[in-house]
Amino acid sequence: MLRLLAGHPGASVVFATAEAGAGEVVEGHRLITADDAPFSRVEVVLSALPHGVSGGYVQRARAAGRRAVDLSADFRLSPEAVYGLTEVARPRVAAAELVANPGCYPTAALLALIPLARRGLIDASREVVIDAASGVTGAGRTPRRELLFGEVAEDFRAYAVGNEHRHFPELTAALARESGFSGDLVFTPHLLPVKRGILETIHVPLTRVLDRGAAEEIYQAAYDGEPCVSVTHGTLPSLRDVVYRNRVAIGVACVANVRRPRLTVIAAIDNLVKGAAGQAIQNMNVMFGLAETAGLAC
Amino acid sequence: MLRLLAGHPGASVVFATAEAGAGEVVEGHRLITADDAPFSRVEVVLSALPHGVSGGYVQRARAAGRRAVDLSADFRLSPEAVYGLTEVARPRVAAAELVANPGCYPTAALLALIPLARRGLIDASREVVIDAASGVTGAGRTPRRELLFGEVAEDFRAYAVGNEHRHFPELTAALARESGFSGDLVFTPHLLPVKRGILETIHVPLTRVLDRGAAEEIYQAAYDGEPCVSVTHGTLPSLRDVVYRNRVAIGVACVANVRRPRLTVIAAIDNLVKGAAGQAIQNMNVMFGLAETAGLAC
Amino acid sequence: MLRLLAGHPGASVVFATAEAGAGEVVEGHRLITADDAPFSRVEVVLSALPHGVSGGYVQRARAAGRRAVDLSADFRLSPEAVYGLTEVARPRVAAAELVANPGCYPTAALLALIPLARRGLIDASREVVIDAASGVTGAGRTPRRELLFGEVAEDFRAYAVGNEHRHFPELTAALARESGFSGDLVFTPHLLPVKRGILETIHVPLTRVLDRGAAEEIYQAAYDGEPCVSVTHGTLPSLRDVVYRNRVAIGVACVANVRRPRLTVIAAIDNLVKGAAGQAIQNMNVMFGLAETAGLAC
Amino acid sequence: MLRLLAGHPGASVVFATAEAGAGEVVEGHRLITADDAPFSRVEVVLSALPHGVSGGYVQRARAAGRRAVDLSADFRLSPEAVYGLTEVARPRVAAAELVANPGCYPTAALLALIPLARRGLIDASREVVIDAASGVTGAGRTPRRELLFGEVAEDFRAYAVGNEHRHFPELTAALARESGFSGDLVFTPHLLPVKRGILETIHVPLTRVLDRGAAEEIYQAAYDGEPCVSVTHGTLPSLRDVVYRNRVAIGVACVANVRRPRLTVIAAIDNLVKGAAGQAIQNMNVMFGLAETAGLAC
Repeated sequence: MLRLLAGHPGASVVFATAEAGAGEVVEGHRLITADDAPFSRVEVVLSALPHGVSGGYVQRARAAGRRAVDLSADFRLSPEAVYGLTEVARPRVAAAELVANPGCYPTAALLALIPLARRGLIDASREVVIDAASGVTGAGRTPRRELLFGEVAEDFRAYAVGNEHRHFPELTAALARESGFSGDLVFTPHLLPVKRGILETIHVPLTRVLDRGAAEEIYQAAYDGEPCVSVTHGTLPSLRDVVYRNRVAIGVACVANVRRPRLTVIAAIDNLVKGAAGQAIQNMNVMFGLAETAGLAC
Repeated sequence: MLRLLAGHPGASVVFATAEAGAGEVVEGHRLITADDAPFSRVEVVLSALPHGVSGGYVQRARAAGRRAVDLSADFRLSPEAVYGLTEVARPRVAAAELVANPGCYPTAALLALIPLARRGLIDASREVVIDAASGVTGAGRTPRRELLFGEVAEDFRAYAVGNEHRHFPELTAALARESGFSGDLVFTPHLLPVKRGILETIHVPLTRVLDRGAAEEIYQAAYDGEPCVSVTHGTLPSLRDVVYRNRVAIGVACVANVRRPRLTVIAAIDNLVKGAAGQAIQNMNVMFGLAETAGLAC
Repeated sequence: MLRLLAGHPGASVVFATAEAGAGEVVEGHRLITADDAPFSRVEVVLSALPHGVSGGYVQRARAAGRRAVDLSADFRLSPEAVYGLTEVARPRVAAAELVANPGCYPTAALLALIPLARRGLIDASREVVIDAASGVTGAGRTPRRELLFGEVAEDFRAYAVGNEHRHFPELTAALARESGFSGDLVFTPHLLPVKRGILETIHVPLTRVLDRGAAEEIYQAAYDGEPCVSVTHGTLPSLRDVVYRNRVAIGVACVANVRRPRLTVIAAIDNLVKGAAGQAIQNMNVMFGLAETAGLAC
Repeated sequence: MLRLLAGHPGASVVFATAEAGAGEVVEGHRLITADDAPFSRVEVVLSALPHGVSGGYVQRARAAGRRAVDLSADFRLSPEAVYGLTEVARPRVAAAELVANPGCYPTAALLALIPLARRGLIDASREVVIDAASGVTGAGRTPRRELLFGEVAEDFRAYAVGNEHRHFPELTAALARESGFSGDLVFTPHLLPVKRGILETIHVPLTRVLDRGAAEEIYQAAYDGEPCVSVTHGTLPSLRDVVYRNRVAIGVACVANVRRPRLTVIAAIDNLVKGAAGQAIQNMNVMFGLAETAGLAC
């Protein structure tokens, strides 16, 4: 976030916090502890504190009359905050005092599913299956054995299998709210031996046959003019199309040799950019009437 | 294959072939061209020639009265050959003149699905979704841009999406033949930035509720005493559990927060061992009455 | 280069060429063949054609009265061109009609060695030993077996050992020209399993004892105010400090337990940026009086 | 070590210890704490306890009359123990009560340098420069931020620069003891983004000109019949030649374009096998009159 803000033409960083790292200098800012944060001196607080910790500080910022974008999960299911999936909630974000920045996995899945769900194209009598794979930066930098290079390199594993991931309720709630879809989802994250990026392979049962061109047109229409959404035509995105960019890339393929209509949608994002700090800045830009992609490469 | 055979106590290599590499020495054998192969001097031919090429040479070996294990796809759908998924077809393999060694992806998927399908536990009215990820050695060593380190490292992509992979008909045919299952499958392979290993995340709609313990018991019973199948209990396998071994590892998880019963099965193999050369040697051992795991680490 | 130029505030791309890829669109430019290049319509030509091919096209551009930066090796040893190590040759670059952009390995080595050599601190009676390691993008994108992911991942190898690399004569000639140093060098490149970045471990025999602070001060003085050189203090750079940046990072350590004074200098660059396209743009900026880092992140 | 011993035809494991992991089962052995180790029930103790801890337990084993191979650094500089570089010290190892297993970096460097040093071919008036690069398993499995996948992948760094590494005094002492060489060494380790393997690029100033063939013959003669040393001819080894094997691979190249004779020697080992557990078992085999490579793939 600090690196992106360093190149932002319309924002300047007043303070940045850390706990163990307080006193260090990052991108030119000497880190202070969150308890010392001078909320009154800023226009907006972007909080990337841990889940469970962030909420209290965000409440302090709001008590001081400041707007906030919270990157933790603390407000994502709360009616107090606007759920900041920018492309879907732009007017609400613009007016928001508090934006809950979406989780990385839901960001990709929601932008892939909402256009189909809003048109009633998803067959709610069959499950939507989402297999997602993420680079390890999604797990943070706290040292844990299972994140060591010697454990992750040359490995690949599923985790939180069976709808056990924290992002599952966030995803289902947001999908229902934005599209009315109430069918079942099966969400399975995997840990990839890469530094950054998320690829989601989303298996969608359809209510009617849809060829690839028609499916691509639905996405094209839904995201016409969107600077941070890229719909591929005739190809499918991979991580290299999105890393270091504030972009979701979406591509589709029809499924042959099955009795009922199905679509496979591939969605890719950089978990650290569109999946976290980039979307937070995108939301901040919308909140303050700045160019939406100011400071962001899309 | 040559490396595994070098440590095999009951087999000795009479000749090994290559085309571009003829004349080179590999594991102590000077490679000859396949056209020069002295089939009459061996008891069994293990052919890892390319699809479309292998069949002809295997026919020559059989015309010379030799038994054969063909690692190509040329006989996998043919009634001439026994489909060599060892654990499922052991008596037929033992008696076979020609064994078609299964593809890497089907090996893992079939060993995961057959025990459930044989018991009628898979709900054929909903699709079985298989997301599979493979290391790059599965794509061979012919230089192609998309397999360069600079393209594959830090990337992850789906390919042959929509049931377009060569292994799809092999998988559906073998599953139907061995279990009678005739529901729909959705099979999506992905390319992983690792050297070797396949992990398959298999989403199974169930005809009745099955808790994890009961599911594990089904696999335990199905593979009781099998030296090359490992059923995990309470954990899920990853690539590190299987690479360099002739083993499939299978683990299960129940799916919460869905209306109808579902199981997620994770199956892992080394694509070069249990998915190719190792299973070929396992089949050869069965064909000749040797210890089934002779020359193999399981 | 096209990606960097896309964000350049003072340059616009008139044409871009490719041979096999002609007709494709890259960063918004439809590629034409080099033979169709309309040199008369541009102010400067940046040529990244292969060694041996580039020279001819650059001569055509010059015959059309255009200035040029050649990224190939074709003019690096030629008196026709200014050797474009920007920090060392800035005034000559500013006035140049033709700039030979330095090789990636020499860029890092020269910026590390010249400040010491100019002060007579390198003991020419003992060899300077340079072990350099590069990511695979330095080898280009032409498919070759030894560059496949399956060959490079988990491997590390030396190549062109014994001063056989094309960059050796470039390095020795430029070092002599810029500093008068005429001692022996031993240069050994290695292939790293990473996508980008070069790290050079440079072993310097000294004419007199120099502690770390004094050595750091020499570099600090030599590169005072330089936007693309970063001298570390008390730490040593690694690839992560420089990738995606037009920067060389230099750090030093004294050598204990030896009889005669020695310094170990670590220099790191991104081979694709400061080692190629970035330095070319930096040179172009200098040639046309633009801000030196326009379009570049340093 | 336990995995290697599981396949050893002439050894059986009586107990295995861990501290945090006590109670876990590894390769069929339930781990006990070192304090509970029944030294009296074994013929030999192989200790891979941490430096500073191992020594005390090894002394207890010896007090109980047991022979020992210590993989820690605790006895490597001590006259109590035989320094177990097997190829160099075989008769002493055979008779030893206590063997200090060499460090990983010294193992490769010593096997590369001793044959030249014993013949007086190394010019002691110029420094021998050793740049070594190791996979991360050399750093153990204790979680530390700098060993996380997100930090190590795509990075490369030098550490303990300036002869600060623990292996430097071990290396110089052993080289002097075995060959009488007393010139200066400069040893610089680097951290590679691979799981296992060490490659050392060793720059040797020569007392006289030696062409490649002559240098190869020196190594060939020095290691004639050695099962765990592989001398390459006309090529240079890389990590893929040695990983998962108890082998050092050594290759040489002459250095052109320098005034005085020099040789570059490349030595590669698997840090976990010939650099640790494998060499310990090799030493155990020698101590007990077993086939030297029993249980080992070379």
